[in-house]
Amino acid sequence: MTDLIEQLAAIVGAQQVLTGADVARWSTDWTGKYKGEPLVVVRPGSREEVAAVLRVASARNLPVVPVSGNTGTVGGAMGKGAIVLTLERMNRIREIRAGARVAVVEAGVVIDALNAAAEEHGLMFPLSFGASGSAMIGGVLSTNAGGANVVRYGNTRDLCLGIEVVLADGRIMDLMQALHKNNSGFDLRHLMIGAEGQLGIITAAVVKLYPCPVDHVTAMVAMPSLDRAPDLLNAIQSASAGAVVAFEFMPRAFIEGHFAVRPDAREPFDAPHPVNLLIELAATKTGVLGEALEEVLAGWLEAGDVTDAVIARNETQRREMWARREAAAEIAYRRRPVVDTDIAVPLDRVSHYLREIEPRLRAIDPDCEVLSVAHLGDGNIHYTCYPSREQEELVAALRTEIDDLALEMNGTFSAEHGVGLSKLAPMARYKDPVALDVMRAIKAALDPKGILNPGKTLPGSETEAAGQAPLTSRLREVL
Amino acid sequence: MTDLIEQLAAIVGAQQVLTGADVARWSTDWTGKYKGEPLVVVRPGSREEVAAVLRVASARNLPVVPVSGNTGTVGGAMGKGAIVLTLERMNRIREIRAGARVAVVEAGVVIDALNAAAEEHGLMFPLSFGASGSAMIGGVLSTNAGGANVVRYGNTRDLCLGIEVVLADGRIMDLMQALHKNNSGFDLRHLMIGAEGQLGIITAAVVKLYPCPVDHVTAMVAMPSLDRAPDLLNAIQSASAGAVVAFEFMPRAFIEGHFAVRPDAREPFDAPHPVNLLIELAATKTGVLGEALEEVLAGWLEAGDVTDAVIARNETQRREMWARREAAAEIAYRRRPVVDTDIAVPLDRVSHYLREIEPRLRAIDPDCEVLSVAHLGDGNIHYTCYPSREQEELVAALRTEIDDLALEMNGTFSAEHGVGLSKLAPMARYKDPVALDVMRAIKAALDPKGILNPGKTLPGSETEAAGQAPLTSRLREVL
Repeated sequence: MTDLIEQLAAIVGAQQVLTGADVARWSTDWTGKYKGEPLVVVRPGSREEVAAVLRVASARNLPVVPVSGNTGTVGGAMGKGAIVLTLERMNRIREIRAGARVAVVEAGVVIDALNAAAEEHGLMFPLSFGASGSAMIGGVLSTNAGGANVVRYGNTRDLCLGIEVVLADGRIMDLMQALHKNNSGFDLRHLMIGAEGQLGIITAAVVKLYPCPVDHVTAMVAMPSLDRAPDLLNAIQSASAGAVVAFEFMPRAFIEGHFAVRPDAREPFDAPHPVNLLIELAATKTGVLGEALEEVLAGWLEAGDVTDAVIARNETQRREMWARREAAAEIAYRRRPVVDTDIAVPLDRVSHYLREIEPRLRAIDPDCEVLSVAHLGDGNIHYTCYPSREQEELVAALRTEIDDLALEMNGTFSAEHGVGLSKLAPMARYKDPVALDVMRAIKAALDPKGILNPGKTLPGSETEAAGQAPLTSRLREVL
Repeated sequence: MTDLIEQLAAIVGAQQVLTGADVARWSTDWTGKYKGEPLVVVRPGSREEVAAVLRVASARNLPVVPVSGNTGTVGGAMGKGAIVLTLERMNRIREIRAGARVAVVEAGVVIDALNAAAEEHGLMFPLSFGASGSAMIGGVLSTNAGGANVVRYGNTRDLCLGIEVVLADGRIMDLMQALHKNNSGFDLRHLMIGAEGQLGIITAAVVKLYPCPVDHVTAMVAMPSLDRAPDLLNAIQSASAGAVVAFEFMPRAFIEGHFAVRPDAREPFDAPHPVNLLIELAATKTGVLGEALEEVLAGWLEAGDVTDAVIARNETQRREMWARREAAAEIAYRRRPVVDTDIAVPLDRVSHYLREIEPRLRAIDPDCEVLSVAHLGDGNIHYTCYPSREQEELVAALRTEIDDLALEMNGTFSAEHGVGLSKLAPMARYKDPVALDVMRAIKAALDPKGILNPGKTLPGSETEAAGQAPLTSRLREVL
């Protein structure tokens, strides 16, 4: 162990190698669900240092867990007996090129910091989610983070033009390009993005920037049912030339859950409604959005497909609408036991899914309660179920039912949070077995010793990775 | 050989196995530059038949070259001594789901046919390029085709949500999903798209559809120099809320080249200009585009950064503008010898590139002539050079100079047409060597016998692919 620490200190400097009590920050995540026990935490300051650390790890056959902001929800950055490699010191914004609308950033740049720098040029990096004040580029790329604005700007992978990756054996792969077309062999950028650190460690990226909108229109819209919500989205998109940046669904139970955590909150409408949509449009030109939205809503109100609608008149009213939506995690986790999920189904099947799932869950646990909130524009539902009693088998059965129905509708059990440690069982259960085999073959080809973030993402990988000794014997080598 | 044909006929039916004179259609491509000599052409009608053909090829260690529309420009679909597997019979549009804005299509569906079907729902598949009347889904996905509308809708990979792939050993990988978020392991869809048939054969896909625009504004714009063209693009995007669907550059030499092939054509402006841009905006709402474009152009005209501008008043004028741009291939290939390229540089470096490259080419061949046309919104330049004499070394030196400078500016030698047979040398010269190694490792992991489209895409793959016998010895086994 002393030997290892000396070797790492020679690479990054002694003060960048942490052990003992100093590693507490990396021993847990904010969900409190996952625990890590880092063997050592190392904080490299350059890609060359990352590469040198990986060469040491590879030679010693030691697991390496990369981490940046540690804001994930699936335990992907927890490392037991591993070298935890944090990218937080690599936080330089190397370049912002306003004409080309790109930024060149290191993996440790915080999303809000990138936005602050881009804003000076009238630009933004449009990834929008709760943890943007601490999440970093490396993490959002490795997990292909989603969020509320995917309907307009896509997932993180769609916002990235180039990356730099250090491979398991310490080789550096340079794919740092600011190109919109580049058909020169397999797309290794997309392979690395969302790979949860299994195939390499992303150390820098070229990301796209977009002009800051100068106009927003935000509205709460009530519908008698969710059936026609996709058509409403399409109608607003057509009328506004694709200006929708958020299209979020909250059922009545969500509104009531909100009152439970915010007793002073206001009702979104005069009367309660089963379907409450938060819709936001944004444009780089003023004065066109409000009219487009009002025109569509007027027609739908008249036809009875929309039952009420409120457009925010000022920033205070807009913030009130968003505060309700943003309380989702607090609302969902206010009770225990809880089954929280991250499913997606095709856009035109969300309504059908929500109608079907509740009776199926009640067939398993007649007294369970349910709650949902959805990025409806992406078909992504965070469906939550509260079992009537704390019992492991019951919790598992309810979770499986929620995932099963998503898969029956050709959806996914893992929409935007990723797999990490939390979804290994559904990966084994639902993922196309040929696709799993192909993933394992690629993992074995690029990380033959299985040292990169082992035991996550790929079910069975903790034992099957070629050439990887069990953790205890590896630790024995070191200690 | 008889044995092979019987085996294939047992899978697809005797009339779907072609040999001798019947394979002529697959022995050449439309460029005339590449020749194939198919051992046999087989026309499967289902993914199960594709899988069975691949099992036969794998067992016999025989190369398989997939082909759909055969409209590529890089020789990617030419097969010498190979089983040429054409997907043209798999041409069913399985489903169009207007609410979810997706189509489920087989690999042999022609792009124009998909658009015709989508149009009945007011939708379109927005891939736009010259060969759309014969190019098929399988081919555009395998090559990640680009075209004129990439600035708005992205490359083919951005238009695809799900795929179905038959692997080298005949296993079927089902990634057919209509999801906008699906973080469940490595992104094998993006790995297969653009892989030129090296890793598997795409047999079906779920593709995105977009609402048909109801309004177009098309203009020719003259500038004194290209330096501020990216800023003009950004200004128009901001003023129109991102409505630009095409932003094409033609220098004066292109306009003159056009007169050479169309003596009856008209000048785009009253006076000749060094920089001629074809700009098109499209929207799903009428009456907003013209004003936005005119407002920006008025300001730029006043400032002198735009020297002239003509907005098409009707469809005839619009067609005239596009006809000029669409004559590019005819204009470029009207003279021999010709060095044609497909480079891209970052958006803010196109002007610098074009200023630098001409003197560098003249330093090699003082009497060469040059011509360029660019998808400027993507940084993609089709740069053409006419050497003063037909001499292999000179042609190669000029080509290398064009590619070298693109790479010096952190660009690519292969923007949208792909690698195939035509760009193996620049792949070896320019591609990051670690990236090449990773590609080879993935190829060896997924196609260990190297039977899928051998000798293309990856330089050295014709000899290095693990376990692959030289072609002659393979043929000996069969014949």
